[in-house]
Amino acid sequence: MTNSEKHNRMANAIRFLSMDAVEKANSGHPGLPMGAADIATVLYTRFLKHDPKNPHWPDRDRFVLSAGHGSMLLYSVLYLSGYEDITIDEIKNFRQLGSRTAGHPEYGHAAGIETTTGPLGQGLANAVGMALGERILNAQFGDDLVNHYTYVLAGDGCLMEGISQEAISLAGHLKLNKLIVFWDDNNISIDGPVSLADNTDQAARFAASGWNTLSIDGHDQEAIAQAIEKARASDKPTMIACKTTIGFGAPNKAGTNKVHGSPLGAEEIAATRKALGWEEAPFVVPADILDAWRLAGLNAARKRQEWEKRLTAADADTRAEFERRIRGDLPGTFEQAIIDYKKKLSAEKPKVATRKASEMALEVINGVVPETIGGSADLTGSNNTKTSQTKPITPDDYSGRYVHYGIREHGMAAAMNGLSLHGGIIPYGGTFLTFSDYCRPAMRLSSLMGIRVAYVMTHDSIGLGEDGPTHQPVEQLAALRAIPNHFVFRPADAVETAECWELALKSVKTPSTLALTRQNLPTVRTDHIEENLCAYGAYELATASDDAKVTIFATGSEVEIALNARAALEKKGVPTRVVSVPCFELFEEQTPAYQQALIGDAPVKIAVEAAISLGWERFIGEDGVFIGMKGFGASGRIEDLYKHFGITAEAVVQAAEAKLQQAA
Amino acid sequence: MTNSEKHNRMANAIRFLSMDAVEKANSGHPGLPMGAADIATVLYTRFLKHDPKNPHWPDRDRFVLSAGHGSMLLYSVLYLSGYEDITIDEIKNFRQLGSRTAGHPEYGHAAGIETTTGPLGQGLANAVGMALGERILNAQFGDDLVNHYTYVLAGDGCLMEGISQEAISLAGHLKLNKLIVFWDDNNISIDGPVSLADNTDQAARFAASGWNTLSIDGHDQEAIAQAIEKARASDKPTMIACKTTIGFGAPNKAGTNKVHGSPLGAEEIAATRKALGWEEAPFVVPADILDAWRLAGLNAARKRQEWEKRLTAADADTRAEFERRIRGDLPGTFEQAIIDYKKKLSAEKPKVATRKASEMALEVINGVVPETIGGSADLTGSNNTKTSQTKPITPDDYSGRYVHYGIREHGMAAAMNGLSLHGGIIPYGGTFLTFSDYCRPAMRLSSLMGIRVAYVMTHDSIGLGEDGPTHQPVEQLAALRAIPNHFVFRPADAVETAECWELALKSVKTPSTLALTRQNLPTVRTDHIEENLCAYGAYELATASDDAKVTIFATGSEVEIALNARAALEKKGVPTRVVSVPCFELFEEQTPAYQQALIGDAPVKIAVEAAISLGWERFIGEDGVFIGMKGFGASGRIEDLYKHFGITAEAVVQAAEAKLQQAA
Repeated sequence: MTNSEKHNRMANAIRFLSMDAVEKANSGHPGLPMGAADIATVLYTRFLKHDPKNPHWPDRDRFVLSAGHGSMLLYSVLYLSGYEDITIDEIKNFRQLGSRTAGHPEYGHAAGIETTTGPLGQGLANAVGMALGERILNAQFGDDLVNHYTYVLAGDGCLMEGISQEAISLAGHLKLNKLIVFWDDNNISIDGPVSLADNTDQAARFAASGWNTLSIDGHDQEAIAQAIEKARASDKPTMIACKTTIGFGAPNKAGTNKVHGSPLGAEEIAATRKALGWEEAPFVVPADILDAWRLAGLNAARKRQEWEKRLTAADADTRAEFERRIRGDLPGTFEQAIIDYKKKLSAEKPKVATRKASEMALEVINGVVPETIGGSADLTGSNNTKTSQTKPITPDDYSGRYVHYGIREHGMAAAMNGLSLHGGIIPYGGTFLTFSDYCRPAMRLSSLMGIRVAYVMTHDSIGLGEDGPTHQPVEQLAALRAIPNHFVFRPADAVETAECWELALKSVKTPSTLALTRQNLPTVRTDHIEENLCAYGAYELATASDDAKVTIFATGSEVEIALNARAALEKKGVPTRVVSVPCFELFEEQTPAYQQALIGDAPVKIAVEAAISLGWERFIGEDGVFIGMKGFGASGRIEDLYKHFGITAEAVVQAAEAKLQQAA
Repeated sequence: MTNSEKHNRMANAIRFLSMDAVEKANSGHPGLPMGAADIATVLYTRFLKHDPKNPHWPDRDRFVLSAGHGSMLLYSVLYLSGYEDITIDEIKNFRQLGSRTAGHPEYGHAAGIETTTGPLGQGLANAVGMALGERILNAQFGDDLVNHYTYVLAGDGCLMEGISQEAISLAGHLKLNKLIVFWDDNNISIDGPVSLADNTDQAARFAASGWNTLSIDGHDQEAIAQAIEKARASDKPTMIACKTTIGFGAPNKAGTNKVHGSPLGAEEIAATRKALGWEEAPFVVPADILDAWRLAGLNAARKRQEWEKRLTAADADTRAEFERRIRGDLPGTFEQAIIDYKKKLSAEKPKVATRKASEMALEVINGVVPETIGGSADLTGSNNTKTSQTKPITPDDYSGRYVHYGIREHGMAAAMNGLSLHGGIIPYGGTFLTFSDYCRPAMRLSSLMGIRVAYVMTHDSIGLGEDGPTHQPVEQLAALRAIPNHFVFRPADAVETAECWELALKSVKTPSTLALTRQNLPTVRTDHIEENLCAYGAYELATASDDAKVTIFATGSEVEIALNARAALEKKGVPTRVVSVPCFELFEEQTPAYQQALIGDAPVKIAVEAAISLGWERFIGEDGVFIGMKGFGASGRIEDLYKHFGITAEAVVQAAEAKLQQAA
């Protein structure tokens, strides 16, 4: 068997596993795995630095299948390479409930799946974060410990999505030359030829953002290998346009949208077997071909052995620090630093915006947690995301700890996913809360993957004032609370802000959003400073002088209003307590007894939040009063706006009195 | 005064109005209006086809300030040109509550504001929709009635946002040669020089997507005029890169990020007055300069008079049809067509997916409503958005009614906003409900502007099956319901789907989302066919045999489950009613009496929706049972998934019985 024949049969193994699995599942996308099989074969058997038996090795090359619908490509190469998570039975159970081989690659289902893909463009942007993470850790730990490539397979869909432009231009700007993107240029989208909707010269587009671009026949193994070599030698990120035939090998359906997202059917599969000279039964890979794949996996693993030696040779402190970072553990000094800082706050009682309080907390955190990487989507001064420790990362120097992400909220969020997935880094990044809408598809993936990313979302209500309704979030808090596995923190003062940051950093499997004010707020939390009360999600901030007749629940900037209303009501002889609710999701994790006791049985329950009411029934019940927004905001001065929309202590007092009268 | 001097003083009028207004408001963005004043002056005084006294004239040129933070540029030119909505008092009240001159341009606040901008990149994408709308109506009504340009001023921020790539590549593909974009190339972003975060060669990038590109000094009036002339003669859309100095004229702050988003301060304003030789008091424009501006406005208006003559000369039917479209009224035959179609459905009782039912309804609608323009983000066959009447629009033929938007959900949504804003068109477009996340910033703007756009969101739950959690919406229904002024419809069968479509088309000031199933559903609505019961938002679909002990609320595909549970409970002697809830928002608009009666007082209230529970407390109270999703979905067969997540009639029956026992 010539080298070329061997390659073809190794690539055909991917093709047949893919078409057989899709056929058995009666659902899935055979076209991409068949079209990109040659690229994957060359990459995995000749270039990829990985170890199928130690798949989490931190200095492995990353491969991201951005075109996630082609999941069988990834499952096939993982099985063939010898990853233990993906057995032939898993391949046979493709797309069945409980299998590791879900319809799209799901991070955590199996080693070798570096990120969850499917929503198009996300994987490419994740990979930018991974490639950036590699450079950052390389700058800190050197070539011996961190020095790997990040490869991506992207389809036309990925490149049409806007997020791809954010990713491409960020990577080009940062000169991430160890990022190599294969574009599966097959001219086919779901509706038909790509030319139905797009005529972009992709190579010119990438080049315009500072990329090296190459163009090859994606079925020519030597051309693929040469292109990878050239890409690895480039001082820029590289896009390799690989002209491929979707559904390569299928005599009647190849090159058409019929092969994109449906099983080929028994007849076409038989014809393909004939055309490609593949005589095996479904799911059977000839022993020599499987051996060749497994051998490639074993060969690749040698790099890991060399790396292990270098790790062992490294000095003990460096090694310990590197391993701590990769494990994702926080430094031992972290908790005490937060407690000390909170004590200082409770003594000094600063009156600052929570965005400023966030900066102050970050100043402490960044001092003791060297793995944080900050950033902002061009709102650094507004998001208060930069601290004294965070020198900017530049294309020529990756030793900094701050990323100027540019006006690319979506790309920032997805790149942060990549930084977090890479390991060794805790990313946080800022924009205005209203623009969380731009980040949302990537934020959802942070939650679905269960990774540690902190979203710093400032200007969190009409309290931002004059910029008006486009910039004033009203539904974003509810919309973010709707995402499963996502902590939405809205701290009321500097102490709560510090606590929320502590929780965000400790939440290894849940991403966090910190919703922070533009406007100044007094310090309201001065008790129980050694305890993180925000960890309860909600807690009693001010007790009633007697059996409470009114309970006021509030978050963030509206806690001050709640406290003022309480003072006025108490003065009028109405025992009133105030509950601060910094995090709905953590409250839901408390015991029913705690929840019940905290909500209490005051006859009047009022919630105050400068946002829509959705979700507050949980606290105030059907009969409660909600003081907040009913629609979009308006442009004006903050005092005018709060008055105009009736979110004031007076309004709370009035509502409480009216309700008490009603009850009496 | 030479021409050049006159131009400079006319442009300086914009500069001083802008810096004075920002100074008085003590808030705002003077840098862009000062930098782009020359461009705006040339455009508005020498090219723009508009009539300040008849500002809604349908064949006017559109001008979109995509960089919406530079709102004072727009307010200044509107005031100077003689638009009555923008008086000098409005300019003085910039950014104050209740003024027309909000922080960012708000559609509906004043004529001449063609769209709400501020969230970056949106305006550019809206303009693509406007330019496409112009071509579509031109193809239908001819050059005499529709033949205008769409101009955009975009900043670096707009071009860094991913949505810009979707807009640019769509416009380039469609050869929208009457779209002309000025790029305010001032090298400055909020964090500092653009080069902190981006090095894209924008001209090369636009050229890669089929644009004509020009590069000029943005302060040279003749260069600006020549570029506009060249752009107007191009057979492609044109991007004019205008090198400008942000804050032009401010001696100490021009060209820096200090002038971007803060008042200049009294001292710098005084220095600028001196530098530019402007001796007027704040808000005073010299009479000769104001006259020159007003004269330009009057001159421009002649084009409208000519157009009016052509409209008068058009044949009566064409004119009536054109005017109906522009008014936004539906054809008189619309309602009866829907009723007839519903009668047919109630007789035939089809068992189809609601996405298919949507296609069937659209087949009727598109037959009687010629102004609908359909489309999909490359999921035509899955979204079922194409009907027999909707031939695709191509770069060479705009007479079609279907847009292949490509894999550009966000760009599609924003372009649909532009189509709707243009007038004369009712746009609808499809993607999967989970990818509403990608569209969200544009959907929010549909709602904020209050315009008629229909989002066709199919594959609306775990019911899509094997594609898995990335493709299965669980929080999207709640997240969309959170947006103010947005109808979220989730019809249960073909009849409800027709009714929801009727409501979506009739909702002139509220955009709609139709959440539709992949899987087949039986026809459950066969009564009261002549009435649109979905208009109530929620209604009793099945009565209880006696005083109801259980009420089951459900939407979409879960209505079938509710009905099966009801049948089982009734069999066991438990009187049970079923309420279908196709639209939360319309239910909220009903009288309290209707709401109370509909919710009723059955001791057990259960809601069933294959999504998270957020928002359902409104129906089932604190003590109700919710049967739905608690987290993300999974990849598997639909039957397996519903069973796995416990969303079955059996689960409803069990929950009802347990609750009844508890109550007893």
